[in-house]
Amino acid sequence: MKRRVALAAMVWLLCGAVAVLAQQRREIRFPDVPGYQTLKCDLHEHTVFSDGLVWPTVRVDEAWREGLDAIAITDHIEYQPHKDDLPTNHNRPYELAAGKARERGIILIKGAEVTRATPPGHFNAIFLEDINPLDTKEFYDVFDEAVKQNAFVFWNHPGWQGEEKGRWGEEQTRLLEKKQLHGIEVCNDREYYADAHREALARNLTMLGNADIHEPAPTEPPTPEEHRTLTLVFASERSSQGIREALDARRTAVWYQNEVIGREEQLAPLFEACVEVLPPHHQDKDRVWVKVRNHCELDITLERAGEHGPGTIKLPAEATTLVRIDAPADVRAAGLSCRATNFLIGPEKPLLVKLVIPAQ
Amino acid sequence: MKRRVALAAMVWLLCGAVAVLAQQRREIRFPDVPGYQTLKCDLHEHTVFSDGLVWPTVRVDEAWREGLDAIAITDHIEYQPHKDDLPTNHNRPYELAAGKARERGIILIKGAEVTRATPPGHFNAIFLEDINPLDTKEFYDVFDEAVKQNAFVFWNHPGWQGEEKGRWGEEQTRLLEKKQLHGIEVCNDREYYADAHREALARNLTMLGNADIHEPAPTEPPTPEEHRTLTLVFASERSSQGIREALDARRTAVWYQNEVIGREEQLAPLFEACVEVLPPHHQDKDRVWVKVRNHCELDITLERAGEHGPGTIKLPAEATTLVRIDAPADVRAAGLSCRATNFLIGPEKPLLVKLVIPAQ
Amino acid sequence: MKRRVALAAMVWLLCGAVAVLAQQRREIRFPDVPGYQTLKCDLHEHTVFSDGLVWPTVRVDEAWREGLDAIAITDHIEYQPHKDDLPTNHNRPYELAAGKARERGIILIKGAEVTRATPPGHFNAIFLEDINPLDTKEFYDVFDEAVKQNAFVFWNHPGWQGEEKGRWGEEQTRLLEKKQLHGIEVCNDREYYADAHREALARNLTMLGNADIHEPAPTEPPTPEEHRTLTLVFASERSSQGIREALDARRTAVWYQNEVIGREEQLAPLFEACVEVLPPHHQDKDRVWVKVRNHCELDITLERAGEHGPGTIKLPAEATTLVRIDAPADVRAAGLSCRATNFLIGPEKPLLVKLVIPAQ
Amino acid sequence: MKRRVALAAMVWLLCGAVAVLAQQRREIRFPDVPGYQTLKCDLHEHTVFSDGLVWPTVRVDEAWREGLDAIAITDHIEYQPHKDDLPTNHNRPYELAAGKARERGIILIKGAEVTRATPPGHFNAIFLEDINPLDTKEFYDVFDEAVKQNAFVFWNHPGWQGEEKGRWGEEQTRLLEKKQLHGIEVCNDREYYADAHREALARNLTMLGNADIHEPAPTEPPTPEEHRTLTLVFASERSSQGIREALDARRTAVWYQNEVIGREEQLAPLFEACVEVLPPHHQDKDRVWVKVRNHCELDITLERAGEHGPGTIKLPAEATTLVRIDAPADVRAAGLSCRATNFLIGPEKPLLVKLVIPAQ
Repeated sequence: MKRRVALAAMVWLLCGAVAVLAQQRREIRFPDVPGYQTLKCDLHEHTVFSDGLVWPTVRVDEAWREGLDAIAITDHIEYQPHKDDLPTNHNRPYELAAGKARERGIILIKGAEVTRATPPGHFNAIFLEDINPLDTKEFYDVFDEAVKQNAFVFWNHPGWQGEEKGRWGEEQTRLLEKKQLHGIEVCNDREYYADAHREALARNLTMLGNADIHEPAPTEPPTPEEHRTLTLVFASERSSQGIREALDARRTAVWYQNEVIGREEQLAPLFEACVEVLPPHHQDKDRVWVKVRNHCELDITLERAGEHGPGTIKLPAEATTLVRIDAPADVRAAGLSCRATNFLIGPEKPLLVKLVIPAQ
Repeated sequence: MKRRVALAAMVWLLCGAVAVLAQQRREIRFPDVPGYQTLKCDLHEHTVFSDGLVWPTVRVDEAWREGLDAIAITDHIEYQPHKDDLPTNHNRPYELAAGKARERGIILIKGAEVTRATPPGHFNAIFLEDINPLDTKEFYDVFDEAVKQNAFVFWNHPGWQGEEKGRWGEEQTRLLEKKQLHGIEVCNDREYYADAHREALARNLTMLGNADIHEPAPTEPPTPEEHRTLTLVFASERSSQGIREALDARRTAVWYQNEVIGREEQLAPLFEACVEVLPPHHQDKDRVWVKVRNHCELDITLERAGEHGPGTIKLPAEATTLVRIDAPADVRAAGLSCRATNFLIGPEKPLLVKLVIPAQ
Repeated sequence: MKRRVALAAMVWLLCGAVAVLAQQRREIRFPDVPGYQTLKCDLHEHTVFSDGLVWPTVRVDEAWREGLDAIAITDHIEYQPHKDDLPTNHNRPYELAAGKARERGIILIKGAEVTRATPPGHFNAIFLEDINPLDTKEFYDVFDEAVKQNAFVFWNHPGWQGEEKGRWGEEQTRLLEKKQLHGIEVCNDREYYADAHREALARNLTMLGNADIHEPAPTEPPTPEEHRTLTLVFASERSSQGIREALDARRTAVWYQNEVIGREEQLAPLFEACVEVLPPHHQDKDRVWVKVRNHCELDITLERAGEHGPGTIKLPAEATTLVRIDAPADVRAAGLSCRATNFLIGPEKPLLVKLVIPAQ
Repeated sequence: MKRRVALAAMVWLLCGAVAVLAQQRREIRFPDVPGYQTLKCDLHEHTVFSDGLVWPTVRVDEAWREGLDAIAITDHIEYQPHKDDLPTNHNRPYELAAGKARERGIILIKGAEVTRATPPGHFNAIFLEDINPLDTKEFYDVFDEAVKQNAFVFWNHPGWQGEEKGRWGEEQTRLLEKKQLHGIEVCNDREYYADAHREALARNLTMLGNADIHEPAPTEPPTPEEHRTLTLVFASERSSQGIREALDARRTAVWYQNEVIGREEQLAPLFEACVEVLPPHHQDKDRVWVKVRNHCELDITLERAGEHGPGTIKLPAEATTLVRIDAPADVRAAGLSCRATNFLIGPEKPLLVKLVIPAQ
């Protein structure tokens, strides 16, 4: 038999030849922040075991190639369109993907998508031990079981069927009161939900953004506008436990199109880690030229929020930009107030930052 | 339930929005030749129903996106590594993919890969009606059944386990004598088999080149060096019958890396259709400047085979190149003899062409 | 001496080797229309002989590489910032570039930019014989001289210093009355002037769009959004005379970002040439699936203007798109009314087209 | 007057808008080494002031955009093909480019190319104060004057007219004996000179590699195979003096196509800085899986030089590669011996390295 895949893996590992091309990993450029590693996580993915179109191992290959640290395969429990060919077996995607995840060093989290009527909509339960007991009749029983297994539960794509169907409802309230709802997708694939963003802030829920991928992932490198929607998790260690602890502590941000969305506590240090102002190479009393390096995947735009500095500063992703600052030395040292328009701490609410210009 | 894929399809069809980006089709640039359409075919593909990693519909999506005209899904009959989850059902991949193929206008050919020991190696039978009767014990019975169904049979990747195991054997001879072997893969994915090339010519077999794809296809546009290995079929009509008639008549060529491999009868008119010499815009008695357009996917290189003209002419894919010809007008009108190094009519045997320079 | 450039040219011509890579020409994909060739022209370019930054031959190399048919080098007459090093000599850029243009088959048009105060702003005079007599004191004398030489005169970038300074003035009126003003730039580089667009229509002026390039041209291939702003000239022959006749007859359109701007007489046949509806491969009484091919550089968007058909149809550049039409056969044969939002026949005024669906 | 360039610069600096796109700087990824900064230098460039095709400021713009730290404009002294239009003035390119270099923070080194017969060939003198005194009749007088000004002198593209004309000659010997020849171009643009490489080692000359650019630089991002040939200078500070000190101390390497060429003293620490082996995430007694990160611009290939480890390890540029090592823990800790085939310490002589695998 021609076991091409197995062969490719072997060739790749033994001699690092051709197959490596397909298997090279591009790290995602969001730097770590003080005290935490910035882990790139997609906690909502599908396979042929529900309505996805790939075998579970493919999700691990994609995660490796794209620079992810962790994924959760979360096939629909109740929606099983392939069941005529692939009899329902909720724990199988995890089992099939686990070996490859271990080899690649990808953190694989066992999960499932609770797929009932909308409203109340869909929910992901992750860090499960056994998915089968969640395949039960009553809606609330599912969450009792999930939490019994110590799962982390979040509401998926609240507004995907329109704003009206995405409103916070009594089910959400009841789950929250029972401490059975811990997070909410503020973004899902190409959608952003302003309502969900407001609820996350108002009700103190962990913010998530995931790809909810069904098809094979594209293989082109990402651009600031086109990339996998992800949850950035600020974890004290690169492990399943580290991620869980950070999710519980709400230390996340969402990378969505050309934005990161999160809480000020997380976005402020992330901005500091992303944007580096180099000591000026050319200055006089009232003017200075500085190089500003952007170390992350966003095309960052800063808008003046104070009296000094350029009206707009564009900092393309992973590039160095030359900026002329017309401001006296003491103002420069104190820092220019700017709105970081790509770092959102609320709906349409940019993070305020100080751009401090070092002395020459 | 969130049926994202169905939804995406619906959105795409109704409003042509975002999803179209992912679904645009790039035509493969090999022009038609006099009397025939040049159909781009991959006649060897796998899905989760054997050792492939995608659901059968994905192969249709890929074919659409990449500009293919026809595909054959040819899952292994005997090798069923997913059978614990996906019970064996040989006709299912075709059944599952057929509806989408019809919508997209992709010609879907029912096939299977006969996967016994090597030697004699693997064989594809395509244009089958029912695959299940081929799942039988005796090697030769399989081919009796295939031909009873009027299948077209070809030997797959002869040298994939090394040149020695890829030698023509008594099984091949017997199948050929019984008219149960019609073609041979000269190329498979990233491999070229010089021995197979020689056998194809010596024994008058149809030449094929296929991707034998198991993983999801990459989504980057092709380059002259990196693309899906394909069989170009010169068919009198764009239909399943048209392809079958052309295969029986051996009117094929193989697009492999930066080459096309085939018979002179097919490659000569293909070259003529690919390379266009424009009337010169600037000339004198002994010299002329001409633009030469390359209308195909190859970076073509011509080497001088006669007394006149440049030693080498490089014609990048889909570009126009300026060429200075130092030769008198009568020589130009008679044509410069060149070896078209990318058009191979035998192992290391380039097609001979005449580059005729029109008068101004 | 190491004459690298001369050497490179020689190597390239003689053996077509490495240098060809840098010198390959990518044709711009706007098809010809019935009766006319669609010539791609940039009629406003600068060199070191005024405030440009490249030697004149570079403009020819760029034109070749980018697929242009014609250029006019139009250095400023009055603005000569390099004159301390390069003494003023208005005819030199043309003289220096002419030989290379002849070899490459690029149509080189002699021109100059009349660069006085704004208002009235700058004007290009092209098809000049001798630029030096235009270097004169009185504003109106310049145009008398230009027209004496049978020049074609157009107003450059009317709104480049703001809408107010770009208003039609008494000078424009006087020049128009004296038949000394024939065209107007509706677009210049990255700017579009709605006022100029209205004036062009109201006063029956030839519409132009040019790059006004000063720096070296980028070498990346164009995208629908990022490309050289050009004048498409619909000429009865590919020659300087052909371009002049078409300009006089106002047979032009402007390719600007993801739009073409022009008159209905030109845009209607251009649309027909760009968009091809293939016979449907799958249909029933009330529905049909058709492939639509876009043969041009625009990502075209069609919006429904009648009662049938999809609300929006996106046709990415040089791709094939699958469109489902829910309409009875007689409606399909009569054609679906659409607004071609990228084909503008006035400010914010899209061309109306009929998308006729052929029978199967 | 329309001073587009000045305007663009102003807009860019004040508001960081559109123009920044064209002006973003991509840093070249070769990390610093212990004790030294790795400066990226092109010490051989031309402008319209000899046979180049761009105004001197363009060379600064290119350097900024491409991530260079330093350039030397070295126009030909004796070869002045534009002198009919641009009267000879050897110091002008430096004067014209100096202001923009200061603003951008590009180190601009004053230089010139001594362009006499071949042999002995061309020489660059850099760090000159006044070029005009070098425009003198006698060959050796030029070098006396250059060294009087404390110039650094190197032999350019020794083999560019063929190996024979590139042989070390009596002139080279005499210059070396007089301490008037300090370095040698081992690579120039797309050429590598094995003879020059040998002479550099045998005679203890500083190795250089430069672009010798005449045309405008391409604007595409670099690839491992296609990029500007550069001299990497390992300097104790980022300044003109820092570069000079490093050149005198022969602390350089040449970045040429997919290789760096230099001395073991420089290449060993550079390799260490480029290749990072992460602690393994999955191991057992005789096997370990490790991620290896390549932080530089080369697609690195390692070949086994000892008894353990994969035959070949491919480490694509700026990617992470998964490598399986079948070797016991003590062997892994001692390090696997490899040949770093892209790090050449002599003609066809790869650097030997140890790949040490950290414990988990």
